[in-house]
Amino acid sequence: MANAVTMQAMSLVVIGSVAYDAIETPHGKRERTLGGSCTYIALAASYFTKTAIVAVVGDDFAEEDKALLASKDVDLQGLEQVTGKTFFWSGVYSEDMNDRKTLRTDLNVFADFQPKVPASYASMPYLFLGNIQPALQRDVQKQLTNLRFAGGDTMNLWMNIAMPELLETIKNWDFLLINDSEARMLSGETNLKKAAQKIIAMGPRTLVIKRGEYGAMLFREDSLFMVPGYLLESVFDPTGAGDCFAGGFVGYLAERGFDLRSGQIDVTDLHRAVIYGSVMGSYCCEEFGVERFRSLTRQEIDQRFDEFKRFTAF
Amino acid sequence: MANAVTMQAMSLVVIGSVAYDAIETPHGKRERTLGGSCTYIALAASYFTKTAIVAVVGDDFAEEDKALLASKDVDLQGLEQVTGKTFFWSGVYSEDMNDRKTLRTDLNVFADFQPKVPASYASMPYLFLGNIQPALQRDVQKQLTNLRFAGGDTMNLWMNIAMPELLETIKNWDFLLINDSEARMLSGETNLKKAAQKIIAMGPRTLVIKRGEYGAMLFREDSLFMVPGYLLESVFDPTGAGDCFAGGFVGYLAERGFDLRSGQIDVTDLHRAVIYGSVMGSYCCEEFGVERFRSLTRQEIDQRFDEFKRFTAF
Repeated sequence: MANAVTMQAMSLVVIGSVAYDAIETPHGKRERTLGGSCTYIALAASYFTKTAIVAVVGDDFAEEDKALLASKDVDLQGLEQVTGKTFFWSGVYSEDMNDRKTLRTDLNVFADFQPKVPASYASMPYLFLGNIQPALQRDVQKQLTNLRFAGGDTMNLWMNIAMPELLETIKNWDFLLINDSEARMLSGETNLKKAAQKIIAMGPRTLVIKRGEYGAMLFREDSLFMVPGYLLESVFDPTGAGDCFAGGFVGYLAERGFDLRSGQIDVTDLHRAVIYGSVMGSYCCEEFGVERFRSLTRQEIDQRFDEFKRFTAF
Repeated sequence: MANAVTMQAMSLVVIGSVAYDAIETPHGKRERTLGGSCTYIALAASYFTKTAIVAVVGDDFAEEDKALLASKDVDLQGLEQVTGKTFFWSGVYSEDMNDRKTLRTDLNVFADFQPKVPASYASMPYLFLGNIQPALQRDVQKQLTNLRFAGGDTMNLWMNIAMPELLETIKNWDFLLINDSEARMLSGETNLKKAAQKIIAMGPRTLVIKRGEYGAMLFREDSLFMVPGYLLESVFDPTGAGDCFAGGFVGYLAERGFDLRSGQIDVTDLHRAVIYGSVMGSYCCEEFGVERFRSLTRQEIDQRFDEFKRFTAF
């Protein structure tokens, strides 16, 4: 029992979308498969730490999808189920997988999402705020009183329609994860080194810029870390890869008990979180949707971490 | 004298274009500046090894440009000067520097280039064949009788108009350096891992795929090495960066006395050649044309090599 308490006390809270996706890639298609940022982040993080989600689904949400999350020991107390349909997204990828076209986005019950953090989550120390309205991200953060880190991601939409709110939100984040075009947009700088300096000055002392197949970079005021992308033999479906990167990154930080608010950061260990993020993003691409997570083991994850060591050593 | 003989005996022969370029980037423009693949490769390689060039220029070629090459101890016996104008290229870069438009290509004396390898080069052990007609590359290679390695680069043009000749040529190369789109075109594979396997089966046992700002990858049958690109604060002019990568790569191999035809390859040391290539490519971008090489020192090169160590360590 003491052990269970400790585990809960060290849990990672993840907020974001839980959705159904219709996906078409050159390798095939799925009409309706579990997706959403919160789903991918929580599944990926669950290999490293106890994870608890805050999200909303409709009454069409399948028991078997809840069961997949539960099988990874994801705490579902914050998964609200309401009347209506679950968020639905459909998209089709180009031949080379570097582009995708959104065919449909039905927000459904997600349109009125007002995240409610269960009392049992209130003292959890780690928080990852998936991409939703910045004001909602801020509200959620206020409900957690014992944080050792909080961070998240965002998207160009909020930069276009809610920039002041977004700046107010990320000011209180310990880290921000975005992709390169978002970093350019947020900072107004084309050059990523200059962009990173500006963003760090906005609040988050750790900035991770994701570059898809080209890898990722971690910036802090006084350090830079870069890693190339894992080279897959076949990219089956890139949906969710960026979210899985986030899940691996933040899951490892939680597993290692990082307190990003202390002055004591082991920067090299922080770099390893970027590698675990890259590992989780790469596994995500190997099958449709979340399917790879049905079989993936921690041993495979650590093997790929070691591969990263080998193929970047000089 | 014994030392001079040894130096010549260990020289690297570089073949390619020597040109004048007109370049416009968001940072400014130059109407006529020294350029050409052979120029960039030789300048970059000269920091690591004695370099000897085979190229042709017109009677308009300036003494001060010869003097720059001579100042780096580049052997100019193979620089043929003929009546007519030197190869001229002009191009303009997009705002983000990721695209460039060729405005003009005047082959001039380069159109009838028949490379003549001076007798004094015949026993030099290292050969880099810059991008020219594959048949000419093959002719040059035959004229060197004592090779410890030969390799080079090529371009999509030859894949379009001279594929059989190109395949016949690279069959006898120890390494090939190309960019990712060329690798896809040469192999007919979109996935770079599969593309690399096919290309290695064509002959070159070492394949380097350059990805511009995203870095580079080195493939051998049983190993893979990847490095992200160096993150510059400001890319002033990317012209020649790929050639400088080649020069740093091959220069380091020559400096270390690599015999790529023996079974004994120190693969980790081979990876370092990719880092030195990346270092030289990054310095090239810091000023217009070849200008950075007027001041660049070996000490700066080694400092940036160490920076690569730091920003990729985990």
